[in-house]
Amino acid sequence: MTAEREVYVHLLPGLAPPGRLAGGTAVVIDVLRATTTVVHALAAGCTAVRPCAEVEEARELAGGMRAGRVLLGGERGGRPPPGFDLGNSPKEYCGKLCRGATLVLTTTNGTRALLRAAEAERVLLAAFVNFSAVCEQLRHDPRPLHIVCAGTDGEVALEDTLLAGALVDYLSEATEVRLNDAARLAWDCFDNHGRVLEGALAVSRGGEILRSLGYDDDVKAAARVDRFALVPELRREPLRVEVGSAGIVKNYWGERGA
Amino acid sequence: MTAEREVYVHLLPGLAPPGRLAGGTAVVIDVLRATTTVVHALAAGCTAVRPCAEVEEARELAGGMRAGRVLLGGERGGRPPPGFDLGNSPKEYCGKLCRGATLVLTTTNGTRALLRAAEAERVLLAAFVNFSAVCEQLRHDPRPLHIVCAGTDGEVALEDTLLAGALVDYLSEATEVRLNDAARLAWDCFDNHGRVLEGALAVSRGGEILRSLGYDDDVKAAARVDRFALVPELRREPLRVEVGSAGIVKNYWGERGA
Repeated sequence: MTAEREVYVHLLPGLAPPGRLAGGTAVVIDVLRATTTVVHALAAGCTAVRPCAEVEEARELAGGMRAGRVLLGGERGGRPPPGFDLGNSPKEYCGKLCRGATLVLTTTNGTRALLRAAEAERVLLAAFVNFSAVCEQLRHDPRPLHIVCAGTDGEVALEDTLLAGALVDYLSEATEVRLNDAARLAWDCFDNHGRVLEGALAVSRGGEILRSLGYDDDVKAAARVDRFALVPELRREPLRVEVGSAGIVKNYWGERGA
Repeated sequence: MTAEREVYVHLLPGLAPPGRLAGGTAVVIDVLRATTTVVHALAAGCTAVRPCAEVEEARELAGGMRAGRVLLGGERGGRPPPGFDLGNSPKEYCGKLCRGATLVLTTTNGTRALLRAAEAERVLLAAFVNFSAVCEQLRHDPRPLHIVCAGTDGEVALEDTLLAGALVDYLSEATEVRLNDAARLAWDCFDNHGRVLEGALAVSRGGEILRSLGYDDDVKAAARVDRFALVPELRREPLRVEVGSAGIVKNYWGERGA
């Protein structure tokens, strides 16, 4: 690739104007916890994840599917809504429950960011737990790239911005890039916080909220870089997330000296 | 001060929820160019600046004031609207024109951010050109602090975030602080870009737009740290900006090694 690659970061889904993502590749980030959890769920054997914006919509979709082959998961205020099989905690998504099941998922920030990003031609889900696998996919993708951070309840989130910055850092080494100002901010964030990842996640507002709810382990789990080598990708009709690529990949995080 | 000082950065005016600033002190930042220009205008002898959201509103307000004592200034798309006395370029605001005049000002991002921030109990205007003077004021102010960045046409702006980060850096040394995630991002931005200020302003989207319009000098002027020692402050009934404090102050920027 000799032309400049366009790399844009949107620190919140609402900061990407309507139509902006069309024709591009979007990477959706909700480190605490939706994209981390989706990677865990697919790694544990879920065949697909169906994202829903609302709790009731998720209940109805799951209710119409064959019992024993569907899991209803997600959170409101950090906790599973009444009657849900699972919350939004990565550790809940084990092989015994997940193998062969479709996960119907609704979360406050992450699934909404994903639905917003569906406007893009290609949509990948990124977390620290699949960082290098995402890099490998982006390396071969010539489209303009939009990194869409979910944030926390309408506020910019440190942990999402940090991962966005790690991707910007990788892409800036791999090719010539054209960045928006938010991408530069994200890069600065990675530069300063990438080496103290678990600490950064713990002091972030999202991390503080989770720790206050007793989910300390989730914060630690979200910081386990490259635990998995799969990339969740959005498929359509119906809208769902499946494993887009998987396999052993080069360790791009280690290269950054973190 | 022994209690933690609350220091929140809002990377765009719209990211501060309604009511959030009430009872606090707000610092409004639009480095390119509104807050830089207001400092220049007050330093050149304007007695007050009347911020207006719309061009027509500015024309009407100026039209109702005594000729020879009023200047109509501002921009749309970076250039002065038809019939305006002045644009939004700091260098236009010289002593000959400004002495004793009221400036009626309307700009795309900065005056709107200022009007949004009016909800706070106290509102100051910050630019690099009055950095240390603003630090001096904040040092003695116990209220929760909200740093409101104007951004560029709805996008997060590097130059505004950088200055927000410089203030966070100063305050974090001066006292115990409680930061939101955006304040941490701003601090990272200052850490990485503070030492290459003029270059950062030049590569920012706002800087690029200004340079493409031939306003290269304005970008350089905006990077002249501590050229002035005055702090513009919002007064009410009618809503206007005047010199809130002025005088020789300690050089807080130099201390940061930049």
